[in-house]
Amino acid sequence: MPVQGSIDKYRVDSKEKFKLSDYETNDKSLFQHGGKEEHDPYLNQLRDELKQLQNQLYAESKHRVLVVIQAMDTGGKDGTVKSVFSKVDPQGIHIEPFKKPSEEELAHDFLWRIHEKVPRNGQIVVFNRSHYEDIIAVRVKNIYPKEVWKPRYRHIVEFERMLAEEGTTIVKLFLHISKDEQKERLQARLDNPAKHWKFNPDDLKDRARWDDFMEVYEDLIEKTSTEYAPWHIIPADRKWYRNLVVARIMVDTLKGLDMKFPTSDWIAEDITID
Amino acid sequence: MPVQGSIDKYRVDSKEKFKLSDYETNDKSLFQHGGKEEHDPYLNQLRDELKQLQNQLYAESKHRVLVVIQAMDTGGKDGTVKSVFSKVDPQGIHIEPFKKPSEEELAHDFLWRIHEKVPRNGQIVVFNRSHYEDIIAVRVKNIYPKEVWKPRYRHIVEFERMLAEEGTTIVKLFLHISKDEQKERLQARLDNPAKHWKFNPDDLKDRARWDDFMEVYEDLIEKTSTEYAPWHIIPADRKWYRNLVVARIMVDTLKGLDMKFPTSDWIAEDITID
Repeated sequence: MPVQGSIDKYRVDSKEKFKLSDYETNDKSLFQHGGKEEHDPYLNQLRDELKQLQNQLYAESKHRVLVVIQAMDTGGKDGTVKSVFSKVDPQGIHIEPFKKPSEEELAHDFLWRIHEKVPRNGQIVVFNRSHYEDIIAVRVKNIYPKEVWKPRYRHIVEFERMLAEEGTTIVKLFLHISKDEQKERLQARLDNPAKHWKFNPDDLKDRARWDDFMEVYEDLIEKTSTEYAPWHIIPADRKWYRNLVVARIMVDTLKGLDMKFPTSDWIAEDITID
Repeated sequence: MPVQGSIDKYRVDSKEKFKLSDYETNDKSLFQHGGKEEHDPYLNQLRDELKQLQNQLYAESKHRVLVVIQAMDTGGKDGTVKSVFSKVDPQGIHIEPFKKPSEEELAHDFLWRIHEKVPRNGQIVVFNRSHYEDIIAVRVKNIYPKEVWKPRYRHIVEFERMLAEEGTTIVKLFLHISKDEQKERLQARLDNPAKHWKFNPDDLKDRARWDDFMEVYEDLIEKTSTEYAPWHIIPADRKWYRNLVVARIMVDTLKGLDMKFPTSDWIAEDITID
């Protein structure tokens, strides 16, 4: 199923003024005809490609790939990871879900626990939430005053610059859902006892501050979209579309690394195994 | 024994052109009269003060102190640590000697292993060699090309800015010895079998590149001396003078933190222990 139009339209250009409202949460313009069923074969094909590319990344052990996923509650962080990376060899990928910082983590700078988890050569690491919470949550929930969170914009930009210039490819994904879609998904969690563990009454407090979150996200995405670490705004009201777009971005990113399998200094035909 | 003149003269002002030759390796102008014996009581007094101050740092658990020590071989890194911090409670201080990076460390950005070791609240960490080797050694010994080491100046400056703005006090010390003094100290290691383990024939290769090292140090100290993380050039030909100056800088730095012992929410007199 060919893509209609360029996937680049979801990448935030660091030189332009960014407005979240320019991005529709239910856009499906790249795959206009049909829905989940029609596009499942293509998603499967992308998963296979991703598996192959990750295998090469691991074999070459030269590049590092860091994927940062941010979203509102129910935005689909877990679901995206599960769907897109389902075929990748677990040995070459690591998913790091950042929870509330521990006492030991809070006794250090906010990037301390983040830096520890960045990918090594040959590895893909996915941050499910990230250092961005140290601005987003901190700012919206008034956890620390402005003197604390304001300098962090620069710290994040420079930290990512360092990672990039030292050899890490950074992919940042904002899973963009509407407030109505969130309502449906939260209700679905309430309606299904098997999903109760995913529901937290505090999510409703965050939901009540929806507009504040959007304002902070908009500002943050503008200030931290750089050439070396751009944000992508993923239309995420439709799960199948979200997965397709993310899978496609991952495949394109890995292909862009122009990887080679390492060459050996022996000739296979010359070797006899007794 | 009162100090004659201000210890600030050894701090590199980030706004001025820096020349290493402006700093004498055998200066003793702050303690002009007498030598080691005459000043031992004062050094001991400083050690006691440092012990008290570190105790308060640990109790308050609010500030973090990072000390970075760089020097040529035999410059006195180990000796300074041993002398200056000899009375400090080992629980609140950690000495981190950075050796050649391991394979795992090299599979990450150069600041990965450094960041892991920065101090937590209430702690003093001393880097015996540091991230600066990732420019100094790399550049002088041509380990990586310019594209690799040049961006690291910015990465270091921004990394230290982040640490400082997040609450770490940074003290950087360059132990400045003359080439003649190094000759004597290397010879002393050769002459004493109990010191042979400290001698490495490769040190002579570094010695042969003395001028290259000085040039790189000069450039590096100028580019990485900042208001929030200034370098100090310590006259280090005389060990007793070096120790006095470093101890004094540490005491002044900790005093400058304006620490308080934490207050309790109970009154000691009201409590009876059965």
